[in-house]
Amino acid sequence: MTTSTALLLADLTGVAVFAASGASAAVAKRLDLFGVVFVGFVAALGGGIVRDLVIDEVPPLAFADWRYAVTAAVTAAAVFWLHPQFARLRTTVLVLDAAGLGLFTVTGTLKALDAQVPAVGACLIGMLTAIGGGLGRDLLTAEIPIVLRREIYAVAALAGSVAVAVLDAYGHANAAWLTVAAAFVFAVRLVSLRRRWSAPVPALHPPHPGG
Amino acid sequence: MTTSTALLLADLTGVAVFAASGASAAVAKRLDLFGVVFVGFVAALGGGIVRDLVIDEVPPLAFADWRYAVTAAVTAAAVFWLHPQFARLRTTVLVLDAAGLGLFTVTGTLKALDAQVPAVGACLIGMLTAIGGGLGRDLLTAEIPIVLRREIYAVAALAGSVAVAVLDAYGHANAAWLTVAAAFVFAVRLVSLRRRWSAPVPALHPPHPGG
Amino acid sequence: MTTSTALLLADLTGVAVFAASGASAAVAKRLDLFGVVFVGFVAALGGGIVRDLVIDEVPPLAFADWRYAVTAAVTAAAVFWLHPQFARLRTTVLVLDAAGLGLFTVTGTLKALDAQVPAVGACLIGMLTAIGGGLGRDLLTAEIPIVLRREIYAVAALAGSVAVAVLDAYGHANAAWLTVAAAFVFAVRLVSLRRRWSAPVPALHPPHPGG
Repeated sequence: MTTSTALLLADLTGVAVFAASGASAAVAKRLDLFGVVFVGFVAALGGGIVRDLVIDEVPPLAFADWRYAVTAAVTAAAVFWLHPQFARLRTTVLVLDAAGLGLFTVTGTLKALDAQVPAVGACLIGMLTAIGGGLGRDLLTAEIPIVLRREIYAVAALAGSVAVAVLDAYGHANAAWLTVAAAFVFAVRLVSLRRRWSAPVPALHPPHPGG
Repeated sequence: MTTSTALLLADLTGVAVFAASGASAAVAKRLDLFGVVFVGFVAALGGGIVRDLVIDEVPPLAFADWRYAVTAAVTAAAVFWLHPQFARLRTTVLVLDAAGLGLFTVTGTLKALDAQVPAVGACLIGMLTAIGGGLGRDLLTAEIPIVLRREIYAVAALAGSVAVAVLDAYGHANAAWLTVAAAFVFAVRLVSLRRRWSAPVPALHPPHPGG
Repeated sequence: MTTSTALLLADLTGVAVFAASGASAAVAKRLDLFGVVFVGFVAALGGGIVRDLVIDEVPPLAFADWRYAVTAAVTAAAVFWLHPQFARLRTTVLVLDAAGLGLFTVTGTLKALDAQVPAVGACLIGMLTAIGGGLGRDLLTAEIPIVLRREIYAVAALAGSVAVAVLDAYGHANAAWLTVAAAFVFAVRLVSLRRRWSAPVPALHPPHPGG
């Protein structure tokens, strides 16, 4: 198996995982088959579409390579039909979702750097690639976006994209180090889930008179 | 009347119809004049703007040709002032909305194919062109998007865009056949409205212990 | 100080002001530190990102120039930590927000005209630049978008962008006149806030039988 085949397989795994997360959310809202597939599609491919628009790689990969759309649609439809069994796999899904977060962070940041975006912008684009799909999923299903909730999610992606930018700046953006970066995001997300880490919240203050 | 004039008139008819649907939704939410025009603009031109961004036709037609924005704004303003009379035309609006769905499906898919997007991606873009405006309208007015509800709407558009891609692949993408494709989407949407067809919904299962 | 330095400073002031408005809204919703920074980022840079995508200036300035993202993030984080003091500055924020509205209207319209967008489209793009960030902020925090509420906000931006397009058409788009246009938007917004001006709302009619 060549490196590019491995990368494609890894990418499609990320698509499938995020499609499953979107489809599960849509099933929970009792949407119909099309709604489930649509939300799955947005969750799996939304982040990448925004990334490709921002770095001017058009048409976005989600439309240019049929394997992406088909992977997302088939996975979401499978969740629709299998959701009772799938519900028992909730832990598996959270783990796979964390893996997808790591993967999309790395590939998104790399693509932005390849498109000559400066480092700070490339980190933001990498993070958006990883969190964009979940944001679309939550807006469509009328939930407060996961990235705005009190969990370590986008911060893990941002840390990973900074790591990728640093590796790239020092010429170490090879397969081994990039795998380490993806694994780092994966691990931070999983540990924070288990330990219920969260970012700080605003301090509560007594209301001001007249406020 | 030349073919391209006919196409422009048909396109602007679609814009007017979707602007009317957006403006009606905004009037129902008691938005002010500007809000009504803004939602009408998004409903009429949102799908086409996304399509043009994805196929890199910039600036999007909605900004490049003033007739599109003016048609949308004038129609939405007319709905604002005439809405009591308009309310009695509800059936007419649903029929025109179905006509717009058929038209935008065909033109969106064709434009994507012309921009060298592969067939699967072009079908998705055609569908998004047709449903994107309604999606924006529903997000702005805090409704569950129509495409996620239990109706045949986006599926009709997707079927139509597949038909256009097949016609194009076999060299039959001429005016007569494309009109048939638009009429097909139109008919499927209307019949499903009348017969209350819908896509399947998730099966209900008893809750699992500990779930 | 050169003109372009002045312009950059003015632009970053607008970014900071809108970041503060987004961060304040996020603090009010009790989001965590990352959520506050994220909403601030969207409010400050969302309108400009859409503008740059539509006129094909990619990657958008928000990603291409690190000073934009850093200004937005630092301002939002400052609001997070200082929000009790900040709350007392509510009037100041409204004034600065109106200043940002005027500034982004002028720069957005000018950039669209420079990118050869026709006048009507350029006015729409200028208005979207000014109101887009606030729209994203309100969607993320599940509020009815301010532009849809009964206030003079987007209309002030639209009037300003028309003024810029007229100045440009007659060759008077110089610093002095553009400052007047920005000040005009600023003044209209402030006066309408103070006098509670609003756009007309739909007339109430008795319900129709069977409606």
